[in-house]
Amino acid sequence: MKIAEWTQKLKKNYLFQSVAEKVKSFKEKNPYANIINMGIGDVSLPICKSVVNSCIKSANEMGNIESFRGYSPNSGYDFLKKSIQQDYQDRNISLDLDEIFISDGAKSDMSNILDIFSSDNVCLIPDPVYPVYLDTSIMNGMTVKFINATEDNNFLPLPDLSVKSDIIYICSPNNPTGASYSKPELKLWVDYALSCDAVILFDAAYESFIEDDSCKSIFEVENSDLCAIEFKSFSKSSGFTGMRCGYSIVPKKLKRNGESLNSLWSRRHSTKFNGVPYIIQRAAEACLSTEGKKECSKFIKYYKENSKSISKTLDNLGIKYFGGKNSPYIWMKCINDMNSWEFFDYLLEKFQIVGTPGSGFGKNGEGFFRLSCFGSHENTLEACKRLENMKK
Amino acid sequence: MKIAEWTQKLKKNYLFQSVAEKVKSFKEKNPYANIINMGIGDVSLPICKSVVNSCIKSANEMGNIESFRGYSPNSGYDFLKKSIQQDYQDRNISLDLDEIFISDGAKSDMSNILDIFSSDNVCLIPDPVYPVYLDTSIMNGMTVKFINATEDNNFLPLPDLSVKSDIIYICSPNNPTGASYSKPELKLWVDYALSCDAVILFDAAYESFIEDDSCKSIFEVENSDLCAIEFKSFSKSSGFTGMRCGYSIVPKKLKRNGESLNSLWSRRHSTKFNGVPYIIQRAAEACLSTEGKKECSKFIKYYKENSKSISKTLDNLGIKYFGGKNSPYIWMKCINDMNSWEFFDYLLEKFQIVGTPGSGFGKNGEGFFRLSCFGSHENTLEACKRLENMKK
Repeated sequence: MKIAEWTQKLKKNYLFQSVAEKVKSFKEKNPYANIINMGIGDVSLPICKSVVNSCIKSANEMGNIESFRGYSPNSGYDFLKKSIQQDYQDRNISLDLDEIFISDGAKSDMSNILDIFSSDNVCLIPDPVYPVYLDTSIMNGMTVKFINATEDNNFLPLPDLSVKSDIIYICSPNNPTGASYSKPELKLWVDYALSCDAVILFDAAYESFIEDDSCKSIFEVENSDLCAIEFKSFSKSSGFTGMRCGYSIVPKKLKRNGESLNSLWSRRHSTKFNGVPYIIQRAAEACLSTEGKKECSKFIKYYKENSKSISKTLDNLGIKYFGGKNSPYIWMKCINDMNSWEFFDYLLEKFQIVGTPGSGFGKNGEGFFRLSCFGSHENTLEACKRLENMKK
Repeated sequence: MKIAEWTQKLKKNYLFQSVAEKVKSFKEKNPYANIINMGIGDVSLPICKSVVNSCIKSANEMGNIESFRGYSPNSGYDFLKKSIQQDYQDRNISLDLDEIFISDGAKSDMSNILDIFSSDNVCLIPDPVYPVYLDTSIMNGMTVKFINATEDNNFLPLPDLSVKSDIIYICSPNNPTGASYSKPELKLWVDYALSCDAVILFDAAYESFIEDDSCKSIFEVENSDLCAIEFKSFSKSSGFTGMRCGYSIVPKKLKRNGESLNSLWSRRHSTKFNGVPYIIQRAAEACLSTEGKKECSKFIKYYKENSKSISKTLDNLGIKYFGGKNSPYIWMKCINDMNSWEFFDYLLEKFQIVGTPGSGFGKNGEGFFRLSCFGSHENTLEACKRLENMKK
């Protein structure tokens, strides 16, 4: 019996677990501290009325023998796929229904997708980025190369043609930096991927926060359907972190080694997964209804108010930061040359504010810190008031 | 770029997909045929009132800012884990809460668990059995050995001490044969696993159908916490096939290569998965309430009526079969020396009855056929009426 090789290669703790443990320990020592959590990217607004009503309706359907539904089609119900198809069509992107795979979230999808590739591949991962890409690439035995995202390139690295890779992770708008690619920039990535037969895994989980002309989908770029898979989530756009629904789009044109990646993903999906709860699929459908979209757009507006409050505070303090415009995260520089974890401890101990150490997202994140804008206005304003007392 | 090696090793289609395609093609040719589906093990009774009420209550909670919940704890909420803990305690099995991991179902769990083991392991898989074990072992690159379950051993094979293995799949009550192990028999498997440092993956998805003294949990057997992981599902016990909830139990005592498998599974869970919807966890909790248990026990009783009807029909026809007592499946011999797929075609074309060819579960399933008892009484009685016209 041998346990998996990754167990020796992975850092002991997943970033957000480490943060949670530190906070827990602080709370034990300071039971009455009023901690404001701007760490994990969890939303705070409740799901919207359309979604609640849809859940109640479908729960009642499930309780009635006439309308009960057992196993979902593995890749999801057509009613939800059609809503997604329409959502893309509204942005002039045509998808076939069987290019859409409904799942329990983008995190699962972006991990599970690696199962269709050989471990004998090179993954190109931006640094800093959402740590799941790295951990899951290691778990699946891939070789990892990093691409440096730094202040110098505004955290928007472009392809280095001298570096060969097979699988390219792109997160745009980026978690944690908030940087988002324009269409001409993404075209360079598509051209690069095509030139070395690579596949882009495009994480569009924060797409709904884009307010300029950054790409909302990789499929806006010509020929991307020959080299890209897109991942979407209802978590941030619709407050679904506790509801669990996302989807992946695998173009039927996308082939490697003569095999359709759409078919391979379908096979992986049907073997290792059994579909998303009917109630949740109906809930996701409600998010994409006219009324649901209107309600969900209010979430984005609400969280953007938080970005503005934090940005203003940092501006006043003369602290450099990125993000906050096309994303729900502020990516700030740590003050007084503190490293990321030192700054974490400083904020927690001095101001009872929890954020996420930038170094947890990669070595280039060292000296940076991520603040989430997903809190309530009240908490965010209170945090800003506290932050005003930071001494540079 | 290389695609995954398993793509060349797996059969082209997952069993139930093949069945679905055959049925679809038949329907296209015979649009008015009244087909009775006794194939896939999907339930037909709606979720019970307690569960519907719980869904409505929690959907409303999710719509209220005071009670909204975002990301679930990765391994599930304590309220559900405590219900499960109590359910085991009622059978004199003590579990710690952090030995319980809530998931979207046993199928996902039994596939994903392989991620914590090296691909350099030998999986011992009963033949015939639920095809996911084989497919997922191949996907994860393991070496597979089979253990023959045949009429001669009443489909309850015991360990062959001359065969070494690292991971042992046991499904009891077995899908498809319905055979279930007694405690002394399971003890032989535990002793064998301990003797060769192997881990048993115990699939107890059909436990609630047991009506004799077969083991309902591997943890009834002494020292099994040193060598076994148990997988459970609400799908069949509570009509949750379209609700998606299950769980795994990984004892903290269980170690291999000096590492705690509980910790490894926790790490895998937190990296590649983001928890089960709050609404679904509350729904599962409702199944384990006093009222919920009472309601769910009626499902079992209902489906067992179907077993009796089918058994009686086969008895009258003098056709040999297994199962139907501790399981919701009848495992019958094909008539007139037909092979499994011939018998599938025969039943579909002649009687418009869909079942599952035994050979889809392994070579020892050839010549057998699985009938599911999860249909309505009405459909099952109609199917029995049709079957009475089978000519031997």
